[in-house]
Amino acid sequence: MRKTPGNELALPVPKPGKGQQRWLHDALRQMILRGSLAPGIRLPATRDLSRQYGLARGTVASVYEQLAAEGYVAGAVGRGTFVAGELPENMQAGLRPLWRAAPQASSLPKSRLGHMLAASPFPLAALPPATPFRPAVPDLRAFPTAVWARVAAGRLRRSRPDWLQDGDPLGYVPLRREIAGYAGSARGIACSFGQVAIFTSVQQALDVCSRLLLEPGECAWIEEPGYPGARRVLAAAGADLVHIPVDNDGLVVAHGIRAAPNARLAYVTPARQSPTGVPLSAARRQALLEWAHRAGAALVEDDYDGEYRFSGRPLAALKSIDHDDRVIFLGSFSKLLFPALRIAYAVLPASLVEAVTGALSLVTRQTSSVLQVLLHEFIADGHFGRHIRRMRLKYRERAEALQSAAKRYWQGALLLPEIEAGLDVAARLTPDGNDRALAKAGAAQRLELRPLSAYAARESQAITGFLLGFAPFSPEEIDAGARQVARLLEHVPC
Amino acid sequence: MRKTPGNELALPVPKPGKGQQRWLHDALRQMILRGSLAPGIRLPATRDLSRQYGLARGTVASVYEQLAAEGYVAGAVGRGTFVAGELPENMQAGLRPLWRAAPQASSLPKSRLGHMLAASPFPLAALPPATPFRPAVPDLRAFPTAVWARVAAGRLRRSRPDWLQDGDPLGYVPLRREIAGYAGSARGIACSFGQVAIFTSVQQALDVCSRLLLEPGECAWIEEPGYPGARRVLAAAGADLVHIPVDNDGLVVAHGIRAAPNARLAYVTPARQSPTGVPLSAARRQALLEWAHRAGAALVEDDYDGEYRFSGRPLAALKSIDHDDRVIFLGSFSKLLFPALRIAYAVLPASLVEAVTGALSLVTRQTSSVLQVLLHEFIADGHFGRHIRRMRLKYRERAEALQSAAKRYWQGALLLPEIEAGLDVAARLTPDGNDRALAKAGAAQRLELRPLSAYAARESQAITGFLLGFAPFSPEEIDAGARQVARLLEHVPC
Repeated sequence: MRKTPGNELALPVPKPGKGQQRWLHDALRQMILRGSLAPGIRLPATRDLSRQYGLARGTVASVYEQLAAEGYVAGAVGRGTFVAGELPENMQAGLRPLWRAAPQASSLPKSRLGHMLAASPFPLAALPPATPFRPAVPDLRAFPTAVWARVAAGRLRRSRPDWLQDGDPLGYVPLRREIAGYAGSARGIACSFGQVAIFTSVQQALDVCSRLLLEPGECAWIEEPGYPGARRVLAAAGADLVHIPVDNDGLVVAHGIRAAPNARLAYVTPARQSPTGVPLSAARRQALLEWAHRAGAALVEDDYDGEYRFSGRPLAALKSIDHDDRVIFLGSFSKLLFPALRIAYAVLPASLVEAVTGALSLVTRQTSSVLQVLLHEFIADGHFGRHIRRMRLKYRERAEALQSAAKRYWQGALLLPEIEAGLDVAARLTPDGNDRALAKAGAAQRLELRPLSAYAARESQAITGFLLGFAPFSPEEIDAGARQVARLLEHVPC
Repeated sequence: MRKTPGNELALPVPKPGKGQQRWLHDALRQMILRGSLAPGIRLPATRDLSRQYGLARGTVASVYEQLAAEGYVAGAVGRGTFVAGELPENMQAGLRPLWRAAPQASSLPKSRLGHMLAASPFPLAALPPATPFRPAVPDLRAFPTAVWARVAAGRLRRSRPDWLQDGDPLGYVPLRREIAGYAGSARGIACSFGQVAIFTSVQQALDVCSRLLLEPGECAWIEEPGYPGARRVLAAAGADLVHIPVDNDGLVVAHGIRAAPNARLAYVTPARQSPTGVPLSAARRQALLEWAHRAGAALVEDDYDGEYRFSGRPLAALKSIDHDDRVIFLGSFSKLLFPALRIAYAVLPASLVEAVTGALSLVTRQTSSVLQVLLHEFIADGHFGRHIRRMRLKYRERAEALQSAAKRYWQGALLLPEIEAGLDVAARLTPDGNDRALAKAGAAQRLELRPLSAYAARESQAITGFLLGFAPFSPEEIDAGARQVARLLEHVPC
């Protein structure tokens, strides 16, 4: 049963001339009927309410009795008085709950950029558990919940008052030191913790950085096909998006230079292009950095799942050869640990550190220290490294399971490249087919097929196929899912 | 000692013609000198590195030995090889850490709104513990840390995989239900949980809502003097701010109607104007709602510390009489529990729910479910209500301590109104003096005096005095602080 936190009640001001008992009865009845006092809510004790409003305690008790007789509240000795679940006049709607009156209220018009801000490509409600082949998610069943709870309990017990107040807007320094060390050893990025900023998500980092750097209407390069999350958040910041095609070496830099030589920013996924999976070649990296230098542009490097590599050498980040200090490197713990944690980070150019500090402080104050302190403890105790090593072995096995299932069941109708890294892989339909229709047919049988065509801003640039996630599924689930997909490919005309 | 999470190392690509041992030695030495491998970082085991780069294990071992002989690394049998704390060539700077090279790199220019976004009025670093009279903070020493840790441990142990994935962008439904019930009973707001949105901070809610509603250059009313956090975040969203004076009945609505009849939004603090503490009168509330209806404007009601009321009746929120559904009601747990939690909420007009869902999903995805689940458990178990009731008694006692100290020591040089609610009070200097100079002199002796003049956007509108916080200090600390202030008033010319 719910309680009223703090046990105070805000009643309308008494109208002169009405008796106290009549006023209190009408006020409570109206709050119940309008929904301010929802079914199941406990009313204050008669003693508290009488003191608060300067009434005789007997007056309050009489009103409670009258409301009970009328069916608005129900009481139990020693437990208190609660708003009834079924209300007597509720269906007569003489006094409808206020929030339901909204349809006749005029609606608030959105601004032009507001419309873009509201157009999210992400799910707008909690998702059901993943079924094959949901991409871009880790195996949440394998997360060491018990260890996480134990670490959290120990750490929170040792909370000091100064951890409870707002900290550095850029984030908790020990966590930023860990991230700087990791960016150095695993991604080749020489940086100090002072350049590391903690965000709630990569989306937030993109939002803040693009607002800091772009005047509304200025050009930004974006990969085509490319990540819709980045495309939409840049558009909502007022960017004029220039869609630059991607080939087997990644972003076609020369195309970008022809199309928008004076762009202020370019968003790239050099480790594994999203969604094609192609790494940006060394020559293109060089060309991109040289262009950015000439144009005075910023480069945003989204390293969304670079940590999972199953074969070949780890690629150093674009940021590692950024001698002109123009690359904003973005990483996230959503895919390394779990998405609901909501901790991401940026390694910033030195010239952006001050502005990002101010902007984070102004628009969010900071990412919760509670989370940052727990994550730091989890890393410092070695649990993070252990988890990643375990997951890399697991995901490699699953990548192999998907490759063999593809050979076995799909007979070339859906082409898989070699899986070297990541949590998912772009499988191409041959010949090009209607991936959206297939995805829809698949959804009816609980198959999650993310169509590749959804990653293209322009229909004409679309490649067709699916971004297939393998990380959260057992080899058996992958095999069964692949057979389902094979039947779909046979029976659904595309 | 720090570990390299995942134990992978991103080395530069070998140049043809260099021997493997020579290449590996140079690559590691360069990473150490540039700072990619920071002092104390553990190098991968020889077995892992040799496998990863297809080298003989003996080659890797020789390189490690050579680096140790040269002083770049230090090893201990069974513990691994670590980058040395003191580097041999570090001072010669032949190869400076890459991030220190930034000064000669060109800096990234900020956009016009970016400059505003970067101009935060909040502290840009972690603060030391509060000393008298820091305003706007609760007593963190009184927070029940042990209870919080116990609740968290129990809840996190029961984490299910589906809590680990991204949830509803508006927030965790059980928490939103608690908030809707609380807004109904304590603030008189009839709402459903569907209208409640969880944010990281009130600042974030303001940022999202103003970007959704305002075209750049459109007018927004703001109180003068008023809350700098709101003023700056609205400006960074492109609002043209219209500063509306405040008198003893709160915002002078008629002035706003004359100055900017077609404003799209008004930001108000009706329960306790920030910083003056004046509640918005009933007549002004009605006038404000009527204007908003005629103008088609949105009203933002920031209820920043309305929950702490020591005398008088709780005032129903402006939102409780918002029959036209134009008021965005904002509340926060920062002052009820602790700031580092970073959970705030909005009760939205029905016509904004969909847009805010999309915007939250796009720019942050959601506030961490970990935090929301813990907060919900803390509330549902009754700890929240208990804490608020305890704190209300404590803060009332402290408010009284401040009132008596003011009478005793300040002899009218600093005038305190009756304290009815909140965590702080606006004390006026009589005659008007230089509150900034006094604050500076106070800071030298660890007195935190927040000048009221800092709340005015225009010097001419400034009132002088201090926003004095009493909530986090014992009656003894308050008395001692008040005596310090008295000496300051005597000796510093203002």
